[in-house]
Amino acid sequence: MLPIVPSSPINRRTLLSTLAVLPVLSALRPGSALAQAPGGQLPSWNDGAAKQAILDFVRTTTDQAGSNFVPPEDRIAVFEQDGTLWVEHPMYMQVLYCLDRVPAVVAKKPELKDVAPFKTVLSGDREAIARLSLRDLEEILAATLTGMSVEEFNAEAKKWIETARHPRWKRPYTELVYQPMLEVLRFLRDHGYKTYIVTGGGQDFVRVYAQRVYGIPPEQVVGTAGGTKYGYGKDGKPFLTKELKLLLNDNDAGKPEGIHLMIGRRPYAAFGNSTGDHEMLEWTGTGAGARLKMLVLHDDAVREYAYGPAQGLPDSKVGTFTSALYDEATKDGWTVISMKDDWKRLFAFEQ
Amino acid sequence: MLPIVPSSPINRRTLLSTLAVLPVLSALRPGSALAQAPGGQLPSWNDGAAKQAILDFVRTTTDQAGSNFVPPEDRIAVFEQDGTLWVEHPMYMQVLYCLDRVPAVVAKKPELKDVAPFKTVLSGDREAIARLSLRDLEEILAATLTGMSVEEFNAEAKKWIETARHPRWKRPYTELVYQPMLEVLRFLRDHGYKTYIVTGGGQDFVRVYAQRVYGIPPEQVVGTAGGTKYGYGKDGKPFLTKELKLLLNDNDAGKPEGIHLMIGRRPYAAFGNSTGDHEMLEWTGTGAGARLKMLVLHDDAVREYAYGPAQGLPDSKVGTFTSALYDEATKDGWTVISMKDDWKRLFAFEQ
Repeated sequence: MLPIVPSSPINRRTLLSTLAVLPVLSALRPGSALAQAPGGQLPSWNDGAAKQAILDFVRTTTDQAGSNFVPPEDRIAVFEQDGTLWVEHPMYMQVLYCLDRVPAVVAKKPELKDVAPFKTVLSGDREAIARLSLRDLEEILAATLTGMSVEEFNAEAKKWIETARHPRWKRPYTELVYQPMLEVLRFLRDHGYKTYIVTGGGQDFVRVYAQRVYGIPPEQVVGTAGGTKYGYGKDGKPFLTKELKLLLNDNDAGKPEGIHLMIGRRPYAAFGNSTGDHEMLEWTGTGAGARLKMLVLHDDAVREYAYGPAQGLPDSKVGTFTSALYDEATKDGWTVISMKDDWKRLFAFEQ
Repeated sequence: MLPIVPSSPINRRTLLSTLAVLPVLSALRPGSALAQAPGGQLPSWNDGAAKQAILDFVRTTTDQAGSNFVPPEDRIAVFEQDGTLWVEHPMYMQVLYCLDRVPAVVAKKPELKDVAPFKTVLSGDREAIARLSLRDLEEILAATLTGMSVEEFNAEAKKWIETARHPRWKRPYTELVYQPMLEVLRFLRDHGYKTYIVTGGGQDFVRVYAQRVYGIPPEQVVGTAGGTKYGYGKDGKPFLTKELKLLLNDNDAGKPEGIHLMIGRRPYAAFGNSTGDHEMLEWTGTGAGARLKMLVLHDDAVREYAYGPAQGLPDSKVGTFTSALYDEATKDGWTVISMKDDWKRLFAFEQ
């Protein structure tokens, strides 16, 4: 995904186009989307270069007799989230969360009620909200993601994730994970790979649902992360408060830097979908031996969305797959996954 | 261990007392110290309150019928390293490493040759080296731990670790791990616990040998960590450079903060040996259900060292087990491990 923290202001200025989140109670069946589908390995993938690249990579790196064998303890695979593992259009889910949290923040700090940008968000005027600047947005993220205890944040985020719905499918965002990618996660894990999310999204946010949705435990979620501060409550009990201090901007060069900090070794497989994932794929790809580098191209206007300048697709407010990235993928032997051509179905709820 | 980064200058001012590292080539047999000893669970432990606390904790948290049952995915155990898993006397190994690296740094930057504190270190005058101030020491750490690529650092550290010897036992430091603690690590892992090192020592440094020595992979080593910077070499290949910027001071309150950043949930078991581990044990202990909180007391002047003001032991330049910490342990139900009384043997090489 694109940075939550600034790095490409021009792309982010008119970031918000939709704010359609209906708070209806959800009763997700945990893990249902992870259930093994019939039909062998990667059943939701059409035969083609992308599927073959995954199968070849796993075969060659797990073949003890081969020169590309990777010992089980070194098998690390990393995945961007937004646009790679689930839908990022029309807006990153975490940004919607932050906008939805504004009323609660204002209730605690009434002085913000008549102050921009909080006033704009409270107005419900979608046109005006869509015109919020990057600086406005940062102010909203800061106010809604920091200043509370880690437990409070987790509880609030969990509640929201269970009730929020995507405007198009009217389903929880956690059902809008790509079934083919869930199959890749499982396929890699079945062959000894430790799967990590390495995302520009907020680390604490993604950790709230990663185990249930992706089968990935909190410690295997690396994301944009702020500091916390250890302190004591009135009851003398310690707690951690989420602080404004940015520790890791997990986009662009921040991705290999975050991988070094949190994992400590170079991955063998990396999946992304935008320019923000470029360095992660590059870092993975320049290691010795067989390495899998894949980019998801959103070229399916019918079943999902088609966007990003690569292949002449329309420009977008989210994840940018540029023509330059496409050219580099071709030059360096990265594999582009065409959602339209490579994926038999997109979501578990589709028959 | 005590901070590599400043927090208690008075204890650290005369930090260095010995610099006796003989660079003799070592041929460690990998994993030998991890081999299962005969004699049931925790064979190197004497019967007593400490051994019983470990056995009781594992029994109650893995009993599915009991109220203290912890699901396997939540089983996290954290260990300080210096003074808890291996010998920290007379000096933290990483500090010795940094002092040993000074000639190589000066060879690359000859202008440092006649400048304090590098000049002092090069002189080999142990008395003078022992009198180096905290600020001097920081300057040495900065010069020897940053500015090179991650791969260069790893290669240098690995080579040093294989050749350095402890002045008393004339053995590699990696043989001076406490056999009873290796048994605890293994016992917890055998019962589904994920074991982490959470140390004030340098994260990158400990990761070099943690798998071989403790059976702990790099991603399960949390330590004091600096930033890295992603860049490109003359050949166009990317690499990460170790930077001076401090991301995590993994001591005191930094330990629960680091645990949140790197693991994302509260541990069920925590082992430490000094005031720098206080917050980690406190954070672990104030979680719901059964939690194991243990402190290693260095009270064995014959087989190892006796130091730290608790129980009237002599003061020390390393890991400080204060009387206040001892009192808190008693008050809060933390278990103190007496090296003298609780450990049948200290090292794997002892018969």
